[in-house]
Amino acid sequence: MQLPHLRVGILGATGAVGQKFVELLSTHPWFEITALAASERSAGRLYGDAVNWIGSTAIPDEIAGQEVVAARPDLNCDFVFSGLAATVAGDVEWKFAEAGYPVISNARNFRMHDDVPLLIPEINPDHSSLIERQSWQRGGFIVTNPNCSTIGLVCALRPLVDAFGVRDVQVTTMQALSGSGYPGVPSLDVLGNVVPFIRGEEEKMATEPLKLLGTLDDGRISPADITISAQCNRVPVLDGHLECVSVRFDQTVGPEAVRKAFLGFRSPIASYGLPSEPEALFCVYDDERFPQPRRHLEHHGGMAVAIGRIRSCEVLDVKFIVLVHNTVRGAAGGAVLNAELLVKQGYLAARSEHASSGVLAVI
Amino acid sequence: MQLPHLRVGILGATGAVGQKFVELLSTHPWFEITALAASERSAGRLYGDAVNWIGSTAIPDEIAGQEVVAARPDLNCDFVFSGLAATVAGDVEWKFAEAGYPVISNARNFRMHDDVPLLIPEINPDHSSLIERQSWQRGGFIVTNPNCSTIGLVCALRPLVDAFGVRDVQVTTMQALSGSGYPGVPSLDVLGNVVPFIRGEEEKMATEPLKLLGTLDDGRISPADITISAQCNRVPVLDGHLECVSVRFDQTVGPEAVRKAFLGFRSPIASYGLPSEPEALFCVYDDERFPQPRRHLEHHGGMAVAIGRIRSCEVLDVKFIVLVHNTVRGAAGGAVLNAELLVKQGYLAARSEHASSGVLAVI
Amino acid sequence: MQLPHLRVGILGATGAVGQKFVELLSTHPWFEITALAASERSAGRLYGDAVNWIGSTAIPDEIAGQEVVAARPDLNCDFVFSGLAATVAGDVEWKFAEAGYPVISNARNFRMHDDVPLLIPEINPDHSSLIERQSWQRGGFIVTNPNCSTIGLVCALRPLVDAFGVRDVQVTTMQALSGSGYPGVPSLDVLGNVVPFIRGEEEKMATEPLKLLGTLDDGRISPADITISAQCNRVPVLDGHLECVSVRFDQTVGPEAVRKAFLGFRSPIASYGLPSEPEALFCVYDDERFPQPRRHLEHHGGMAVAIGRIRSCEVLDVKFIVLVHNTVRGAAGGAVLNAELLVKQGYLAARSEHASSGVLAVI
Amino acid sequence: MQLPHLRVGILGATGAVGQKFVELLSTHPWFEITALAASERSAGRLYGDAVNWIGSTAIPDEIAGQEVVAARPDLNCDFVFSGLAATVAGDVEWKFAEAGYPVISNARNFRMHDDVPLLIPEINPDHSSLIERQSWQRGGFIVTNPNCSTIGLVCALRPLVDAFGVRDVQVTTMQALSGSGYPGVPSLDVLGNVVPFIRGEEEKMATEPLKLLGTLDDGRISPADITISAQCNRVPVLDGHLECVSVRFDQTVGPEAVRKAFLGFRSPIASYGLPSEPEALFCVYDDERFPQPRRHLEHHGGMAVAIGRIRSCEVLDVKFIVLVHNTVRGAAGGAVLNAELLVKQGYLAARSEHASSGVLAVI
Repeated sequence: MQLPHLRVGILGATGAVGQKFVELLSTHPWFEITALAASERSAGRLYGDAVNWIGSTAIPDEIAGQEVVAARPDLNCDFVFSGLAATVAGDVEWKFAEAGYPVISNARNFRMHDDVPLLIPEINPDHSSLIERQSWQRGGFIVTNPNCSTIGLVCALRPLVDAFGVRDVQVTTMQALSGSGYPGVPSLDVLGNVVPFIRGEEEKMATEPLKLLGTLDDGRISPADITISAQCNRVPVLDGHLECVSVRFDQTVGPEAVRKAFLGFRSPIASYGLPSEPEALFCVYDDERFPQPRRHLEHHGGMAVAIGRIRSCEVLDVKFIVLVHNTVRGAAGGAVLNAELLVKQGYLAARSEHASSGVLAVI
Repeated sequence: MQLPHLRVGILGATGAVGQKFVELLSTHPWFEITALAASERSAGRLYGDAVNWIGSTAIPDEIAGQEVVAARPDLNCDFVFSGLAATVAGDVEWKFAEAGYPVISNARNFRMHDDVPLLIPEINPDHSSLIERQSWQRGGFIVTNPNCSTIGLVCALRPLVDAFGVRDVQVTTMQALSGSGYPGVPSLDVLGNVVPFIRGEEEKMATEPLKLLGTLDDGRISPADITISAQCNRVPVLDGHLECVSVRFDQTVGPEAVRKAFLGFRSPIASYGLPSEPEALFCVYDDERFPQPRRHLEHHGGMAVAIGRIRSCEVLDVKFIVLVHNTVRGAAGGAVLNAELLVKQGYLAARSEHASSGVLAVI
Repeated sequence: MQLPHLRVGILGATGAVGQKFVELLSTHPWFEITALAASERSAGRLYGDAVNWIGSTAIPDEIAGQEVVAARPDLNCDFVFSGLAATVAGDVEWKFAEAGYPVISNARNFRMHDDVPLLIPEINPDHSSLIERQSWQRGGFIVTNPNCSTIGLVCALRPLVDAFGVRDVQVTTMQALSGSGYPGVPSLDVLGNVVPFIRGEEEKMATEPLKLLGTLDDGRISPADITISAQCNRVPVLDGHLECVSVRFDQTVGPEAVRKAFLGFRSPIASYGLPSEPEALFCVYDDERFPQPRRHLEHHGGMAVAIGRIRSCEVLDVKFIVLVHNTVRGAAGGAVLNAELLVKQGYLAARSEHASSGVLAVI
Repeated sequence: MQLPHLRVGILGATGAVGQKFVELLSTHPWFEITALAASERSAGRLYGDAVNWIGSTAIPDEIAGQEVVAARPDLNCDFVFSGLAATVAGDVEWKFAEAGYPVISNARNFRMHDDVPLLIPEINPDHSSLIERQSWQRGGFIVTNPNCSTIGLVCALRPLVDAFGVRDVQVTTMQALSGSGYPGVPSLDVLGNVVPFIRGEEEKMATEPLKLLGTLDDGRISPADITISAQCNRVPVLDGHLECVSVRFDQTVGPEAVRKAFLGFRSPIASYGLPSEPEALFCVYDDERFPQPRRHLEHHGGMAVAIGRIRSCEVLDVKFIVLVHNTVRGAAGGAVLNAELLVKQGYLAARSEHASSGVLAVI
């Protein structure tokens, strides 16, 4: 079987999320980076010179030598990943969609828009059909992935919603520094400290899951009927959001049933063979000290969701711990998996194929 | 008015909690350290040589030169503070009480014993009368203060119980390293990491508050009828436990009423003039980024409880943040305030007075 | 004896160094803060609202309620402390001096100027007479204190220069985050990391000491004939610069002689009774694990210099550790002590006295 | 060409260094782990249950299920790696060598023994011939690798010694927590702190390099004639020792020549095709902020040595930064590379070959 081959552009390629896109895509079997787009200030420089690379692996050589271009909708690629900051993502992504580019975005700007899929392939793969409601011409559309802390929570809720029905969720997060980008949190604010506030985060965690876990009905999403209360904290951890979750179900459910639901979860897209999909979505730890950000984050390429300490909750029904890699599953890796799904579903294709593609012709 | 003057011994004087006792007592207006007791291994050495002093202030000179003695019930003092580890506290404290010493303990061993007061002076000062149920001879008794994370929670609940009635409490803690003593948590476990488990901590937070907020009825405590669910985490912070709390009340209550309840709280012992009582029990912050361990912990000598981010909870009724100094209010400082209260109440006195003291004679 | 009373302004009052000035001056026996000056953006707001207070003690109440004014040379005060960033300090300090204000600056801009004293009261108090070479009118002048890491090194070198003569110095620093102000170092750069570079720092450490240890000759400084090589690193520590120093002397000298030189050091201004001068300039630790930033920094109000691990150097002669509080002795506290010295020396006085002051009249 | 295949045992397999051996060897092309040896307490348990795995990757599945055995010289393997603590390594390694096992050790006990090679393959591969001086029977011998901070320094000195001659070395280290094993440094000692002392470390850095850089003369090592002064510090970094080095040469040498010497270094064993040898021993960074532990440690599998900030030294001749992965190149990885070299040199072979091996027969 021939592998798909698509040329991709990265919007915001020098930023923190953009760097993670570069890292993940440099060895991707389907996608080839053909355009590194950033601000006018960086345009014209070699990527290796323009970027303040914050990762712990080296910049891939062949990327370091590519020239950065301005983020204008004339990029040489089949579609774009957007790692743009929310302050500019709205305008730029809109222009790319208008110009006919599929935009696979990590930014929050269009997440809650009625016609824009907010997508986690294992959770709501059918929501991608919202693309067909978008009125862009020439193949342009926008697909988004959720907030980094939402992703962990929603993944964990999916099997519970399916098996038992979920009524109420309490979640307290301990979020990593990389979640606020670079330069992000000043070291004087967070070394040996916790900041019990992250602007906008609790609102996102209370609302995005309802769309993600909603049902597609006649081309529209009916949001899930779940009540979520979030308390979000920034802790001195580099990568990895840890979440203390407590759930009330629609029926009587104990911790052992919850454990089985996690272990028994079958990804609806398991048969698609997407390169970035982890073998199992959940890694369930029985050691009560686990999972921990520093120890368990990189397991399964950062794309699995770690679960631990499943036990009864005295106030709601069951409580447990969720750990998610915020810059991989929670950002760039999640967007890459979204693009892979869209390729499989026929929404994304090499541009030369656009004219003849049935699905794309519809758009 | 003449100040009380009592000679105190410190059990476990070289340990982490013992050091905090030394720090707080070295300038105390009522209490003079006359015995520094530790293990046989340290006995006979000068305190300054025997201790691995972990504080950021210098060892008080006059203490550094005192000789450490073995923790045997023949100390030259009117009563003892116990900063012993739970592994030895049970035996040693029992022996001291048997030998006629009042023991003001920070250890967990006797906290839930029916006849032992679990005491926070501003919260349940009347519980000290349980002392009278203790059957030790010659003035011996045991009084305890709660677990370091319990203290912050219970202080915060007191005005809410009084004003509205509390039914359910969800609390997720982010606890400092000093809470596990020295050497405590290995640095490889916690630098840039969170450990989502602290042995025994969630159980203590679920049970101790019920005794603390219970009512004294005919010489016995009727535990409060509140359901508490705790999730406890260790974070890379030196001092200061931060707690994300969510509360369901017996009636409809909003965040503004809760804020007023904190600000309107009047300590039942405010008139006693206890040296360690903070001017106000609560420090309420309106800046949504506050309170933070590194910034707000030392305000009011570490004895006040900081409250912030009071807001509606989507699942229960109101949620907010609590910050408590775990080694001051949550340990040594809490015990010192307990002793001050007992002096005022007549349960503690210079030993020469024992024979003639009405209350003490009863015991 | 009547205490001096001078009204002081703080330039850059909302910045990191400015906040330390506020903290130190709010309880100062001689100086009263009468003007808090900052950028136009902050002017007109209450200090408590304008400042992002990063300290671990509360903003003094009486300061929090003062109005911030713009940093224009019409402040209501006898002299100003400058905690301005180097980018603006040059212009603003110049204007204040021109307008007749004595400026006690922590900025680097004028430090190496021939006519500007670079001053550490215990080290080179006579250098203040350079003031008399400054050509400002109406009492204006500029006095500076050295770079925060220079201060620790120079203090340590003073008794060694006096006793033995110093030829070569190798120093490697591990510098705290607060040294780069706020927001300063991004947490992603420094959590669990060391940055082996601080712009301009090594140059300052190689040159400033030569002026500080230079001799005043006919109104000019002859720089000391010492060769210094510095390697400067940023480490994840909040406060406190630790320096590994190795020294070659003009004669054969061993560690015991060096230890005696530190212990025997007598401050030339000990008799002045300056409020901020520590009882002893040096705290010498014999425990080989000491001094450490977190444990020993605050001893003696942060104004003493801690020394430890004095031992033979295989390559030069003797090596040892220096610890200095970079925002107290190394910045705001050093400037305050400079101002105290200048009061004592007659260079600084309440403005009403200016006309009649002999020394000031000269200027 | 057929790959070598040897069965290896790991002494101290559950310790910090032992875990790194497991991690590196689980995918090694030549070596198969056939014995996991630890204390009697762990013996009989499955490795996955016995170990407190501190790494950030998962325990290899096939290793987790192996049974741990006692560290007695009856292991089923061709040779052993020793990750034992120095407190027990002396006895145990001796017994294994006596019993005929080649012991490739990371412990310090036999490093400075006249007949024991202290080996870094790229630096002194010929020193392995000291094995022939060892009087063990039946193929037993001991080979050691140096202290983790020594390794970085010695690698950096090798090309400089060869090209220019080195007379004096000053080095100040900032060493990672993993260097002291597990539980190692208590978090209360090192979070937001620097400990300016590591027992025995400065002595090792002053002496081990002289043997490593010494010349083999008639079967004996003549130590190099270099004077080294080390100052060693523990910093809150997980992995990676950073060293600030300053060197005086036998001739006039500037930074550019030093840079060329690093870039021009050719490994004497480059042609051997050893699996763990990095493509280039040195990674030279021109960005003055580099190398940094968190960013550059894992480049080249942790086996390269990173160099940066090469510049003139005002006191000696040239100064620069060295970064070495202390648990890979500086411990387990260095030992594995040693074993690979010994296989290539004929000192190590599958045990069935022992009798017929010329070199081994000599021993």
